[in-house]
Amino acid sequence: MTGSIHPQAKIKVFEQPFVFETPHMGKEESIPVLEVGYEEWGDPRNPAILVCCALSQSTHATDLHDSDDFKEPWWGAMVGPGRTIDTNRYYVLCINMLGGCGGTSGPASINPDTGKPYELQFPIVTVEDMVRSQHILLDHLGVKKLYAVIGGSMGGFQALVWGILYPDFVERIIPVGSSGYSNQFMIMTNRVQIDAIQRDANYRGGSYHDGPLPSMGLAIARMVGFTTFISPIMMERKFRKYHKSEREPFTDAYFHQQMFHEAENYLHTVSYPFSKDFDANSMVYLLQSWTHFDLAVKYGSLAKALEPVKAKMMIIAASGDNLFPPYLAEELVKTANVNHISVRYELIEEDYGHDFFLIPEIIFEKLTVPLKEFLAE
Amino acid sequence: MTGSIHPQAKIKVFEQPFVFETPHMGKEESIPVLEVGYEEWGDPRNPAILVCCALSQSTHATDLHDSDDFKEPWWGAMVGPGRTIDTNRYYVLCINMLGGCGGTSGPASINPDTGKPYELQFPIVTVEDMVRSQHILLDHLGVKKLYAVIGGSMGGFQALVWGILYPDFVERIIPVGSSGYSNQFMIMTNRVQIDAIQRDANYRGGSYHDGPLPSMGLAIARMVGFTTFISPIMMERKFRKYHKSEREPFTDAYFHQQMFHEAENYLHTVSYPFSKDFDANSMVYLLQSWTHFDLAVKYGSLAKALEPVKAKMMIIAASGDNLFPPYLAEELVKTANVNHISVRYELIEEDYGHDFFLIPEIIFEKLTVPLKEFLAE
Repeated sequence: MTGSIHPQAKIKVFEQPFVFETPHMGKEESIPVLEVGYEEWGDPRNPAILVCCALSQSTHATDLHDSDDFKEPWWGAMVGPGRTIDTNRYYVLCINMLGGCGGTSGPASINPDTGKPYELQFPIVTVEDMVRSQHILLDHLGVKKLYAVIGGSMGGFQALVWGILYPDFVERIIPVGSSGYSNQFMIMTNRVQIDAIQRDANYRGGSYHDGPLPSMGLAIARMVGFTTFISPIMMERKFRKYHKSEREPFTDAYFHQQMFHEAENYLHTVSYPFSKDFDANSMVYLLQSWTHFDLAVKYGSLAKALEPVKAKMMIIAASGDNLFPPYLAEELVKTANVNHISVRYELIEEDYGHDFFLIPEIIFEKLTVPLKEFLAE
Repeated sequence: MTGSIHPQAKIKVFEQPFVFETPHMGKEESIPVLEVGYEEWGDPRNPAILVCCALSQSTHATDLHDSDDFKEPWWGAMVGPGRTIDTNRYYVLCINMLGGCGGTSGPASINPDTGKPYELQFPIVTVEDMVRSQHILLDHLGVKKLYAVIGGSMGGFQALVWGILYPDFVERIIPVGSSGYSNQFMIMTNRVQIDAIQRDANYRGGSYHDGPLPSMGLAIARMVGFTTFISPIMMERKFRKYHKSEREPFTDAYFHQQMFHEAENYLHTVSYPFSKDFDANSMVYLLQSWTHFDLAVKYGSLAKALEPVKAKMMIIAASGDNLFPPYLAEELVKTANVNHISVRYELIEEDYGHDFFLIPEIIFEKLTVPLKEFLAE
């Protein structure tokens, strides 16, 4: 589920300059060659649905296996034959984010001018840049319209920007556990993660490709992230039982870190392997594009930002999402209503926390019905 | 407000072994000399009130100045002449935690056997050890009874343990924004902080005193802490206005980190100076004693833990405290009721977040009246 290049990813190389949104020192920034990594499932003649990635997600949203083992593909419970996003009925695509390291151009890509990785010479990436790179791929693949764009978290940012930049291309937008801007809590926790990476002694200003990797800083960053992906209530439910069952909790093995609480083991398990796999600069670029995502500031207001949108919207939030609390979704719903956009709001009563949209049980019990209804409209 | 030795701290040296609670490899652990750093205010003939420190707090809770400038002493709005904890009426003490670096023995103290800092040779510290070291000092100072013990956060842990270990010594216990155990969110965020410190290349297994300090890791740890000390709602109120007023939010100066959002500047301001000032091993020891604080696990249940308590209790929580949510305080209240302990519960409607008890306006508006009433009983 990490965002490094999945064996099943295809990579399309566009031998044409890609111009980025943000100039540097007043000068336009571009790369001479754009690569786009993606996976696709289903018949290209069917209506197309684009699944957008969250921060660390690879192109491998599903593997079309009809099994209930959802270990690897990150949205196998959502996307597949007979699933909510039914690959028998839709042509489904998942595209790696620009700036990432899962097949699309990013700071770890080779700069053709130097033959070495761009590292921090890679231009700054915004969500708008990501969406434009995705549009180039879809255009190349002959997709003329998206039946729907769906994504959780940062994937929801992309879904919104699709509706703004390409109003005639997109029929349905479905941001899940997302918002129209990053709030200050996200900005702060993202900053801790960026600093954790950049202060790793191995980071060396981003030029680490010829030496040891800043894996420790990346692991710390990831641990910070994971403390925000599950709600405190869920952590208690998930881990407290182990804590209670320990017969000798005060053995010095804990203090001497020969033993850990289950919650600590969990953090280590999800973070240390990831840190060997994902490009640290990519993480910095993606976190920055998250932090700087703010449709209200960029367009003057959320209402002005959503003005071009023609798509129907379905906005999904979960009551216990502590990273993207429902008030953020509700601001979007309110703005869509003001703008006379057709919008449906689903507030899921669910205290799992931000990652709710990835959990098979929650998908089957709480997301499938409203999503199928909305997709059938 | 950092916990390194304050110029006004006194240090009492006890030339006697201090035995720690936790054996190592089955063997009792001790230090041959115990130092205790503290400050005291008011007339020692008055009833004594002990103010306990939270994670990073120094002995310098107040400076007795009657000014409204609360920049340095961390509880100047609470403790002082005419304040809630009135130094004209009470003899007030604040003692640095064992394992810290504010005057009381800790991993940065010199091991008399080697002439060098203990570093990780310092025995493991529990909240019980802290309280026993405080009792030794009070006994030496001739204090026979505590009129009250009060503390926020980890300071509340100490207040509870005072009531358990020395039931005849303590008349009133006041944990503020605290609990009877660390929940899994604390365990996880503490673990990130410990890893951030210990994975700093300069940490070198805790033996950094003869070289560069692991300040970066400590700064990252501190930043993680600060994302939990203020509620997301408060962050939004405090920092969003700056964010909105920026005319050119998408200038690349932000991406290139020549400029930061106010929320990011705040994190840097509170964390980087701290990291040059506080001992990294002390932070690890104190975080571990926090993580491993669990009266329920230790005594079999919270009810069993509180059995010896004779003191009256006043338990204060704030509705918006996301680190020590009110349910933790309410479990204590419920247990105290079951145990027929006289207990008063104050749930403050206040969404500032965990640090509410340090904010002068909140102290004056919401804490002073109930606390004065309780202290007058």
